[in-house]
Amino acid sequence: MAKILTLTLNPALDLTVRLARLEPGAVNRSEAMLTHAAGKGVNVAQVLADLGHDVSVGGFLGEANPQAFDALISRRGFGDAFVRVPGETRSNIKIAEQDGRVTDINAPGPLVSEEAQHALLDKVAMIGAQFDAVVVAGSLPRGVSPQWFQGLLQQLKGLGLKVALDTSGEALRTGLQAGPWLVKPNTEELAEALDNATDAIGQLHQQGVEHVVVSDGAAGVTWYRPGAALHATPPKVTVASTVGAGDSLLAGMLHGLLSDEAAEQTLRRATAIAAMAVTQIGFGISDDAQLAHLESGVDVRTLTEQ
Amino acid sequence: MAKILTLTLNPALDLTVRLARLEPGAVNRSEAMLTHAAGKGVNVAQVLADLGHDVSVGGFLGEANPQAFDALISRRGFGDAFVRVPGETRSNIKIAEQDGRVTDINAPGPLVSEEAQHALLDKVAMIGAQFDAVVVAGSLPRGVSPQWFQGLLQQLKGLGLKVALDTSGEALRTGLQAGPWLVKPNTEELAEALDNATDAIGQLHQQGVEHVVVSDGAAGVTWYRPGAALHATPPKVTVASTVGAGDSLLAGMLHGLLSDEAAEQTLRRATAIAAMAVTQIGFGISDDAQLAHLESGVDVRTLTEQ
Repeated sequence: MAKILTLTLNPALDLTVRLARLEPGAVNRSEAMLTHAAGKGVNVAQVLADLGHDVSVGGFLGEANPQAFDALISRRGFGDAFVRVPGETRSNIKIAEQDGRVTDINAPGPLVSEEAQHALLDKVAMIGAQFDAVVVAGSLPRGVSPQWFQGLLQQLKGLGLKVALDTSGEALRTGLQAGPWLVKPNTEELAEALDNATDAIGQLHQQGVEHVVVSDGAAGVTWYRPGAALHATPPKVTVASTVGAGDSLLAGMLHGLLSDEAAEQTLRRATAIAAMAVTQIGFGISDDAQLAHLESGVDVRTLTEQ
Repeated sequence: MAKILTLTLNPALDLTVRLARLEPGAVNRSEAMLTHAAGKGVNVAQVLADLGHDVSVGGFLGEANPQAFDALISRRGFGDAFVRVPGETRSNIKIAEQDGRVTDINAPGPLVSEEAQHALLDKVAMIGAQFDAVVVAGSLPRGVSPQWFQGLLQQLKGLGLKVALDTSGEALRTGLQAGPWLVKPNTEELAEALDNATDAIGQLHQQGVEHVVVSDGAAGVTWYRPGAALHATPPKVTVASTVGAGDSLLAGMLHGLLSDEAAEQTLRRATAIAAMAVTQIGFGISDDAQLAHLESGVDVRTLTEQ
């Protein structure tokens, strides 16, 4: 069991609405509406907890609507390392119609002040050393610059923590310069962050990134370490929802790496946990037998060096 | 200053989302998202508080997401007479586009058990006698029958309270049989509840309803008492949002009646408060000078008896 901190700087309250058909401009009646605490780091934390780890969650949380987060933290027994900021954590509305069409409405989060950013750095300085690893995941909230973000990653690294980074765009581009221990971009995010560099992986290894885990949906996952690369193809599954699949992959990789499992088994299980997320409306390890079955269906191959 | 209880059996969390244009099936970015505690009785309570009254709010509240209601109750200093029920208070999403189009998505509320219904009757029996009046407003939640609702109104009346009723459909039809002190239907609600009876008002007065306040949007308000009827036409205003206009009218009528103001002034101010709500995105008495100006623009006439 490892002690892991996940940081979500821009968490969200996911509000899922189900209805027969969305009629714009009319009064629609929904069949059900569900609210839950979300955000990449919060999702990763839940899968890590399912895998038996001791997890704390942190980042910035709007103080006007913390209810769902407080309830999750208390239910899962997470350590609470969130800095509360004025305003509401953003809500992301997902309107799911009977025919499978999904309409997303994503709100801006609260503006995070310099004071709150200082408070998070202070908190991390105070509690960071007790963790084996830290996951920094998701987008940057309003008010937080990529430069500040890079400084946060450097500070975490300076505390001796294994830093796993999962973000995109400018935050990924700048964050990579801090040389995190592990990154988990998808194919497009990686290409965008490195300007389609021909030797993207070599470049990352040179920058000090030890593990580059590149996800490519149903085509599988490639894991590059200096001098070694493995590719895993998941079994074919019926897609219920891809929400949380990438977060599940990241949690699975951390689990194997922090438990010193063999590389092939690490990637195999991580790929199976992500496939399991895809078969569910939610995510997480709800059924050990199903996970074992999915694991046996993952094809792992060693890639010859380029 | 009067002591007033408002009961909202099926409150809602209003979630207002603003965006340029809603694209179904896409990821939309909203400019802003605002959550607030709502429901007719809760709205009436806020206007009554603006008018200086001592207000308590009650009804059924989902215990999973009470945050916005708890905050409102504490901020306004309301007495809390809500019975907490398992599950979430329903959320009503209002998607407002730049061109003025509004899409509503209304969720079902929690199922209210017989036990919770008993608990509300017990609470009302315990605290009811201290109030001068009670407002019972809004729709019935799942699990609550019109017959139980009629019993609630009878119990309130039996406690010596002036009962003001604002609901529609079967709840209004059945509720009227309890002979409330005041009802505030709009033209359609009244016609539906009384099956388009030719002498609807006379019928209501015979059933013991003393005040029938019929609203008809921009055409104004007619107030029927036995042997007297007044009609008020509001000044022309620019409509920002009609949310809370009816609730403001009801609060204004209660204010005049419980303060023993002259009938004409009671209807004049109530009509102006409703007009003021229409000029705002929210409602409430935010500006006394503007209210005075609107009052002076209300045209009140005595109707000759039919």
